[in-house]
Amino acid sequence: MFESAELGHKIDKETFRAEEPKLRAALLEAQFHLRENGTFPVIILISGVDGSGKGETINTLYEWMDPRYLTTHAFSAPTAEERARPSMWRYWRALPPKGKVGIFSGSWYSQPIAERVDNDISRSEFDQRMDQLNRFEEMLVNEGALVLKFWIHLSKDAQRERLKAIEANPLTRWRVTKETWDRLKTYDKLQEVAGHLMRTTNTPWAPWIIVEGTNDRYRSLTVGKTILDSLQRRLADKRDQNSPVAPPFSPRIDRLDVLRALDLTQSLPEKAYDVELAAWQGRLSELMRHPEFTKRALILAFEGSDAAGKGGAIRRIAEAMDARQYQIIPVAAPTQEERAQPYLWRFWRHMPRLGRVVIFDRTWYGRVLVERVEGFCSDADWLRAYSEINDFEHDLRNAGGIVIKFWLQISDEEQLKRFEARAQTEHKRFKITEEDWRNREKAEQYHEAVCDMIDRTSSGTAPWTIVEANDKYFARVKVLRTICERLEKELKLEPMKDPRLLSAKAAKAEAEKDAKTEEKAETKAEEKNGGKEKDKNKRSD
Amino acid sequence: MFESAELGHKIDKETFRAEEPKLRAALLEAQFHLRENGTFPVIILISGVDGSGKGETINTLYEWMDPRYLTTHAFSAPTAEERARPSMWRYWRALPPKGKVGIFSGSWYSQPIAERVDNDISRSEFDQRMDQLNRFEEMLVNEGALVLKFWIHLSKDAQRERLKAIEANPLTRWRVTKETWDRLKTYDKLQEVAGHLMRTTNTPWAPWIIVEGTNDRYRSLTVGKTILDSLQRRLADKRDQNSPVAPPFSPRIDRLDVLRALDLTQSLPEKAYDVELAAWQGRLSELMRHPEFTKRALILAFEGSDAAGKGGAIRRIAEAMDARQYQIIPVAAPTQEERAQPYLWRFWRHMPRLGRVVIFDRTWYGRVLVERVEGFCSDADWLRAYSEINDFEHDLRNAGGIVIKFWLQISDEEQLKRFEARAQTEHKRFKITEEDWRNREKAEQYHEAVCDMIDRTSSGTAPWTIVEANDKYFARVKVLRTICERLEKELKLEPMKDPRLLSAKAAKAEAEKDAKTEEKAETKAEEKNGGKEKDKNKRSD
Repeated sequence: MFESAELGHKIDKETFRAEEPKLRAALLEAQFHLRENGTFPVIILISGVDGSGKGETINTLYEWMDPRYLTTHAFSAPTAEERARPSMWRYWRALPPKGKVGIFSGSWYSQPIAERVDNDISRSEFDQRMDQLNRFEEMLVNEGALVLKFWIHLSKDAQRERLKAIEANPLTRWRVTKETWDRLKTYDKLQEVAGHLMRTTNTPWAPWIIVEGTNDRYRSLTVGKTILDSLQRRLADKRDQNSPVAPPFSPRIDRLDVLRALDLTQSLPEKAYDVELAAWQGRLSELMRHPEFTKRALILAFEGSDAAGKGGAIRRIAEAMDARQYQIIPVAAPTQEERAQPYLWRFWRHMPRLGRVVIFDRTWYGRVLVERVEGFCSDADWLRAYSEINDFEHDLRNAGGIVIKFWLQISDEEQLKRFEARAQTEHKRFKITEEDWRNREKAEQYHEAVCDMIDRTSSGTAPWTIVEANDKYFARVKVLRTICERLEKELKLEPMKDPRLLSAKAAKAEAEKDAKTEEKAETKAEEKNGGKEKDKNKRSD
Repeated sequence: MFESAELGHKIDKETFRAEEPKLRAALLEAQFHLRENGTFPVIILISGVDGSGKGETINTLYEWMDPRYLTTHAFSAPTAEERARPSMWRYWRALPPKGKVGIFSGSWYSQPIAERVDNDISRSEFDQRMDQLNRFEEMLVNEGALVLKFWIHLSKDAQRERLKAIEANPLTRWRVTKETWDRLKTYDKLQEVAGHLMRTTNTPWAPWIIVEGTNDRYRSLTVGKTILDSLQRRLADKRDQNSPVAPPFSPRIDRLDVLRALDLTQSLPEKAYDVELAAWQGRLSELMRHPEFTKRALILAFEGSDAAGKGGAIRRIAEAMDARQYQIIPVAAPTQEERAQPYLWRFWRHMPRLGRVVIFDRTWYGRVLVERVEGFCSDADWLRAYSEINDFEHDLRNAGGIVIKFWLQISDEEQLKRFEARAQTEHKRFKITEEDWRNREKAEQYHEAVCDMIDRTSSGTAPWTIVEANDKYFARVKVLRTICERLEKELKLEPMKDPRLLSAKAAKAEAEKDAKTEEKAETKAEEKNGGKEKDKNKRSD
């Protein structure tokens, strides 16, 4: 969930200075329209980890907006007056009326999160509370409210840094207490609880907007722009005010995201590939025959850019398995029978029994990728798909399933190269169609859809693994390694010795050999430049 | 929840014979259209207590409909094949495709109900499961399905009778086992669980339809007509198939319902009234000062026909309380401030703290009564209000609130009499307006709305008490008695000695006195005919 909020988002001073006045003016303007038309209230929740700049964000919003039509409520432990009433009473009292904006610092989520982190309530009690809050927010949206839920995220290191900085400053020192430092100790637990909370309360009518808190300018600008954008859209929306409206997803104002942050130059030399591939395939084969695995099922989901090498990666996995144990499901357009059923039906029907493996070549994520971008389903359909998919994977997981999801990413140039190569190779021409070329034109939209998908469906129990796939060797080994390591963890086994040590040793031996046989240097150079026929074939099949 | 399914609904043979062929023809016709257009599947769940005729109902549906486009799935304990997969897998497999009808006997609710009755899962785990099922059904409806959930109800006595009858018949004896009789022992627990289930899974897109199972003809006809009606509506609905559609509420085909079943002739003589009123007022006063009450809050909700005597009843309650402890909230049209907030806000703001009482003269039920009938809100608004209100009362209850709800019912003739009397009495003329006369014209619609309201919001924790209010004395005492008895139960106190014993004694003494003083007989007769001035005043204030 938090992948895209740990990328080190940053806005420099100049950009900020240029953007701020425009944003302020636009926010005031939108606020004025809201007040004049007054058909709905705006409810803004600012939540997140300690020291992530929640207070600063609220202060900035006060600077930017008209404070006469803005109220803020900070909730901490309930007062005696509040304790004598139902727990939601204080939030009801604080709701902004139509035409106004209410900011909630420490919202209805704070108490349940704290109780869950301290293990005061069980997982199912926590879920029960989340369900109540979902119904509450659904009611608010049905009543017309625009609900914006921000979660300001900090990585563990970033949190420590920030707390230190706050403590070092005499003006802010008072804000850091012993409890604050104690809470840093529960960081991992908080992340787990927050991740689960994001998954269960990320509804189409009130989705979470996760914002990286490290850089003040980035944080303020992102929150401000998201509020502005949602407000403008909602004001322009002439439909029945009762219909749930999803706010726009967090704009990535610095154009940094999980895909752009990848280092696609990573590669693996052939020698290392041979050693590591063999090692991981052997390990996978062992794991598949492990008695513990008979109580689990493995569901592998492959998505990726066109020509990213899904097929090749899947073949390397299949090689390590007994044919009776696995099934590969290539997912194309639904059949007539499948179209007569709910969307997820065609995936449910292939669910493996315990002890078995199903590999999906393209998956249920089609709904939030191709169907979203191509308009094959309505906005409401793909918006609700995120939570339906999360529920689906949660069901699988609860029944012993191990869900591993891969996104294979290649650069634009690499894709073009592969397309052209395919078009020129007789036996591969079938792999490239008109559609593939068309998809390239929509690259930007697909890019956005992939980022949203990863943000919204990468959960603690079913995380996404993004694979840098410009180099096929590197990609295949990363896929196999991820599967093996995840299985080892799930089956509670000792991890295998990292085969990179083996391959490094082999590479060293090779290098020594090379040093001795200077005469072969030229051929070697040719190899590295991809001029070797054998190598080329191996990478491309 | 089950009030209206314990009234002894019955359809006689002649009516059934007249209705059946029409219904069959119409069902086949609707099924044909469904098949031809094929834009959605129909999913019918038949649940309920043992011996309530679930199997017979399904058999009848098979007789009536085209079995080629009908599938039935009976689910009991999962098979080995099913256990090796996620628990929802078997239901996914059984979903009917678009254009077809699928009947589920023993649905996704059966397992959680059984586990909860046996205390295998906790309340919060049960709620967690219900939440999952709600999401599942919401998904089905979003995918276009028409979901009809029937719950066939039997009172405890009726269940015992039916089981005996089944056992006595050699052809059906096999169906009654030791387990069946064991389950009768857990009847009360089942009702509690089922009532809670109805409350939490009675969603606007897939509400429960509760049907009394005692009479075969009534049960089959009700289920058949509800299916027909829903199917016809859905086929005629040209809106976006993705929008949740609430099926129509169970038609009461024998015109018997909780209001019509009332005995409005019940009355209380003045002497008994004096004795009992004083006794209950005294008791209420005691209870209000009981140390246990400081940990609770009392929320009294009064609804009723116009001129049913809500005000008089409320005054009798207030008389027994310390003015500092209670507050009376007369609910009229919302103020401007209230209109700028979500519907329930104006009730939340009056919620009492612990140890206090709030009496609402008209309540949050306005949404499903006047607002529904007069069209002050959209269908979607009042349909979602049932679950919002249930959630609201659940919140109050969870925070220590005791919610007691009264519906005061008077007959049409009595209402007319009171309206005319009011119009003629100077100081009461203000109580009757044009609107009251208009409302009388919509009596049928209000009647329907009240029955739906009671069916859908009478929960174990906040049940409705329907008060026969043609006689004001009877009504006031019933209200006070209900409050005292409920408080005694909630505060875990010994019940007060029934003052009816006292009043009966008083009446007896009176009768004896009367017998001795024959000369007073005439005055007495006059009194009974309502000719006594003092009495009249007392009843009407």
